[in-house]
Amino acid sequence: MTETKFDTTCIGNAIVDVISKVEDSFLETEGLVKNSMNLIDEDRAEDLYGKMGSAVEISGGSAGNTAAGVASLGGRSNYIGKVKNDQLGDIFTHDIRAMGVNFETQKSDQGAATARSFILVTPDAHRTMNTYLGACVELGPDDINPDDIAASAVTYMEGYLWDPEGGKAAFRKAAQIAHEADQRVSLTLSDSFCVDRYREEFKSFIIDGVDILFANEDEIKSLFQTDDLQVAIDAIRPHVEIACVTRSAEGSLILQADESIEIAADRSIEVVDTTGAGDLYASGFLYGFTNGFSLAESGAIASLAAAEVISHVGARPATNLKELVQSRLK
Amino acid sequence: MTETKFDTTCIGNAIVDVISKVEDSFLETEGLVKNSMNLIDEDRAEDLYGKMGSAVEISGGSAGNTAAGVASLGGRSNYIGKVKNDQLGDIFTHDIRAMGVNFETQKSDQGAATARSFILVTPDAHRTMNTYLGACVELGPDDINPDDIAASAVTYMEGYLWDPEGGKAAFRKAAQIAHEADQRVSLTLSDSFCVDRYREEFKSFIIDGVDILFANEDEIKSLFQTDDLQVAIDAIRPHVEIACVTRSAEGSLILQADESIEIAADRSIEVVDTTGAGDLYASGFLYGFTNGFSLAESGAIASLAAAEVISHVGARPATNLKELVQSRLK
Repeated sequence: MTETKFDTTCIGNAIVDVISKVEDSFLETEGLVKNSMNLIDEDRAEDLYGKMGSAVEISGGSAGNTAAGVASLGGRSNYIGKVKNDQLGDIFTHDIRAMGVNFETQKSDQGAATARSFILVTPDAHRTMNTYLGACVELGPDDINPDDIAASAVTYMEGYLWDPEGGKAAFRKAAQIAHEADQRVSLTLSDSFCVDRYREEFKSFIIDGVDILFANEDEIKSLFQTDDLQVAIDAIRPHVEIACVTRSAEGSLILQADESIEIAADRSIEVVDTTGAGDLYASGFLYGFTNGFSLAESGAIASLAAAEVISHVGARPATNLKELVQSRLK
Repeated sequence: MTETKFDTTCIGNAIVDVISKVEDSFLETEGLVKNSMNLIDEDRAEDLYGKMGSAVEISGGSAGNTAAGVASLGGRSNYIGKVKNDQLGDIFTHDIRAMGVNFETQKSDQGAATARSFILVTPDAHRTMNTYLGACVELGPDDINPDDIAASAVTYMEGYLWDPEGGKAAFRKAAQIAHEADQRVSLTLSDSFCVDRYREEFKSFIIDGVDILFANEDEIKSLFQTDDLQVAIDAIRPHVEIACVTRSAEGSLILQADESIEIAADRSIEVVDTTGAGDLYASGFLYGFTNGFSLAESGAIASLAAAEVISHVGARPATNLKELVQSRLK
């Protein structure tokens, strides 16, 4: 294992979120399943945007949010993702760098615009996402800097990255480099529909070489096509070093070898917008794990980071997480 | 007076706000006066943005916020302002139309990008604005649709519009059309520094034909170069039909002929971001005034709309103001 330059390198779809409040009836009319992520094309993006109310634009992208969280916690954070050289690409680039994240991926000059996710937040604070991948389809293996991956304690990738052409190849290249350098590979399953799309490929990829897996209850059940969480847990244990299974308000489980650690969710906060909860959970755990904290401590940091992000609109921390952790976790 | 199509037509600089939290020390380092609006060029915009933390983008622009407020209250609202045919221009256009505002101003195809205001919100919830006018300099008399102005009960203009080339000419044309159609002309002084830039021109314009004037305490004092609010009030009375003088947490004064009506501010809310307080006050008053409410009632609606907008980040209503007014006022 070489000396590390980064605690984490996060790889994902670089997206600007377009967030709007809607009533539940809007989801019904548009045929959308609450809490899901739907891939949409440019025509549908235009159609949906035209029907949405006024919105707020905030940089997002699942792994981008995780990278922002690691940096906010004081970790050394690197991000790989593709934007176009346009106004939204400038906004994405500014925001992630302003959080303290290293972001050097070459912008695309041609082709589709920077990706947008139209996020509909219902009165119950749940979010339903509609993502136009745009420039994300331009990401490929050439965007993976081998030196940076080899010098990252953990290379973390979002399952969503399997959607665009080229993402999968970038993904596999990064995983190979990380393992050759004796570093860890981490994956989030992202979304149960995403698992539906790539179940067998995800399984092979996990068995071949994921060290730290993040999944929520629905995703891990979907992976093993079971309704029984315990069955899914028993199935994943042998294949990864660590699995973190998040269960919304029920907290989370951290699994390692035969051990199961239960982490409580912070129920004291008022939930405003659940966007980014899983992303920030991952940032807290990865920050803790790569900075010498125990699994239980890392889980507590994860819980705190997730609670912060669901207490406001937007999927990135609005507070300095390092100070929050210091004030809350002794 | 012809039959009206719009309660209000609002004319102003069409701007997307880029909002970021900063410490007071940031203002000091950058030599910025808290609560002011500073005009910046493209180089300074880039410099400042590079120093700012991650931000949120929300459509803004003083008169745009007022137009959004009138629509949210259920009023018939029209807006005139110039954006470029770019991503931020699309966002501005979407958002104001999604609020129910009629917005038909031709986008510019060449020249500077859509305007941005870098808004720095300090821990005390006060905002300091740094505006790059961009495409706003392209607005001119040709953008004023005479039929729409003649069919608006009130044509409302922001003082800021005197900054870009062409804005002033558009302003004068609109005022003339409104008066020829026996409709009312309204002006907000916008900012005490703006008053400093155009004091004598503003005075002439007001005397020549402003019917409803909006100003905060600093602005009206600056107009008459006095430290004494009463002196300023006595000076403005003879020249306008109505003057609304806002005084932050002290509430506001509505002056008509010899009458002075005191309107209380809503002090029950937690102030998060004062951006848009004056804009939404104006929307509430103009909605009330053009819909048959008394001055006191219009002032109460104005107060409620202002309180709503300072209770969250962003300068446009996040709540349906019509429902808010119905639930709170009787």
